[in-house]
Amino acid sequence: MQIFDRVAIIGCGLIGGSLALAMRRHGLARRIVGYSPSLASRDKALRLGVIDESTTDAASAVEGADLVVLAVPVASTAATFAAVAQSLEPSALVMDVGSTKVNVIQAAGIHLRTHLASFVPAHPIAGKAESGVEHAQSSLFEGTQTILTPTASTSAQAAASAKAIWTTVGAKVSSMDAALHDRIVAAVSHTPHLVAFAFMNAMTQREDTRQALAWAGPGFRDFTRIAAGDPVLWRDVMLANAVEVIEQSRRLRSQLEALESMIVKQDGKGLEAAFAQAALARSNWGASQVPLGATPAPSTDVVG
Amino acid sequence: MQIFDRVAIIGCGLIGGSLALAMRRHGLARRIVGYSPSLASRDKALRLGVIDESTTDAASAVEGADLVVLAVPVASTAATFAAVAQSLEPSALVMDVGSTKVNVIQAAGIHLRTHLASFVPAHPIAGKAESGVEHAQSSLFEGTQTILTPTASTSAQAAASAKAIWTTVGAKVSSMDAALHDRIVAAVSHTPHLVAFAFMNAMTQREDTRQALAWAGPGFRDFTRIAAGDPVLWRDVMLANAVEVIEQSRRLRSQLEALESMIVKQDGKGLEAAFAQAALARSNWGASQVPLGATPAPSTDVVG
Repeated sequence: MQIFDRVAIIGCGLIGGSLALAMRRHGLARRIVGYSPSLASRDKALRLGVIDESTTDAASAVEGADLVVLAVPVASTAATFAAVAQSLEPSALVMDVGSTKVNVIQAAGIHLRTHLASFVPAHPIAGKAESGVEHAQSSLFEGTQTILTPTASTSAQAAASAKAIWTTVGAKVSSMDAALHDRIVAAVSHTPHLVAFAFMNAMTQREDTRQALAWAGPGFRDFTRIAAGDPVLWRDVMLANAVEVIEQSRRLRSQLEALESMIVKQDGKGLEAAFAQAALARSNWGASQVPLGATPAPSTDVVG
Repeated sequence: MQIFDRVAIIGCGLIGGSLALAMRRHGLARRIVGYSPSLASRDKALRLGVIDESTTDAASAVEGADLVVLAVPVASTAATFAAVAQSLEPSALVMDVGSTKVNVIQAAGIHLRTHLASFVPAHPIAGKAESGVEHAQSSLFEGTQTILTPTASTSAQAAASAKAIWTTVGAKVSSMDAALHDRIVAAVSHTPHLVAFAFMNAMTQREDTRQALAWAGPGFRDFTRIAAGDPVLWRDVMLANAVEVIEQSRRLRSQLEALESMIVKQDGKGLEAAFAQAALARSNWGASQVPLGATPAPSTDVVG
């Protein structure tokens, strides 16, 4: 197991801070240097012992580092690459943790040109409702999945080092093509968030919003939970994964329009078939998620 | 508290069966007679002790009954009213338990003409993922809400009797206009179900459905949970509440289209404002749901 002498965390938020804590706990890092644009975040990270040292610019943080982790909003990735590129040690392993990968790889292609062999794009599928370094925890990645999307330029050694880090902090690691990654997360994560945001805005447009919300139950609660997500994070994700998100969102609108049309025509047969297909797909997925021998969650729920 | 000598349950399913069990447990019913079109359901209800006696037609069940409960799919309400109307005792209290109310009241207006003073439309907002009398339980209504939508013809005495029944079995009872009821449940229950069904069908339309579903996490799980609902029940609900559901579904599609358009234009400012509005509405609703002193649910969740 490779132990890093100096780890640079660029972006001391929930994910960057949690990775710092996890690497320290598992003995992967001797010294951790952190940079965040906000002085308050840097100070908080220092005070909480998440980092050993803070710097006032990103370039100084990466000087002498053998591991550089970019844990910035995806929209800031290109600017951060540009800021640190000239200061990277030739041997330094570089990783990001963004929710989209094609745009990050494009930015790396522009700014990291001599360093592409040591760059391993990573997406830890982990998080919390809260953001900020004060919510960081060393166990955040335990039992979660991390997807690596190595490029044609990524060396096998760099990919193996990245995999070892994420495995050691508790994640199950998979590798896939960046474009496939972006398509998949658009379908199962980004588009559901977009729809949940749109749904809440459609609720607030009603004349009887307040009255209606007073009658919302467990079905509504679960369906809209992800609409409470961080607006800035999700803005960046949607902008970065625009093509894939829009394709899936349009597909949904078209399905919804088809259902509406069946309702207008009072086509009970068509509606029942469409609902049955959806229910079967959801039940099959749900069944695939229940580990053998595990107790299913309580099933009490509002159905009407 | 009024004790009923003979309660007729028309439709021995989850809701009808649970109300029978709850009324018996709370001493509200001396004898319970049940009818279901399916012989198997009737026999099961008898064997499980949910009903004391079964009949081979709905009309025989209501003969001599001082309380008649229609717990049939909303699409069967009109036919059931027609089947029992001639056999109702003049003094019998009649309730339904349907998820939509305007259409039920219309059907009552046609078929129950001489009996409208004793008819109290009711919607117990309770249920389970499973259907069928074998899942019936006397505690199903405890801590839930029941909405009554008395008509201009409903007598105060009938409304009070209905309220007493639902209160005794553990529900909090409210009254509102049937049209308002249908608008509200369209917004907070029916449309979310329609969207969840459409979303799952959009998922199954992808070329990479199986691969994508393998990466679906807790956000997807909660967002799509209601898509596993009973296709027949939801078909009937959508057909019965067509106008309100379609209005809200179109409102959602229009909001979603607006978000897509911001993504296409890479309008980060607009997108962030829209997401922030949705997140605020959802957070405010969520906060209104947490009883004082209660422990909020664990917040760990996938955000990327």
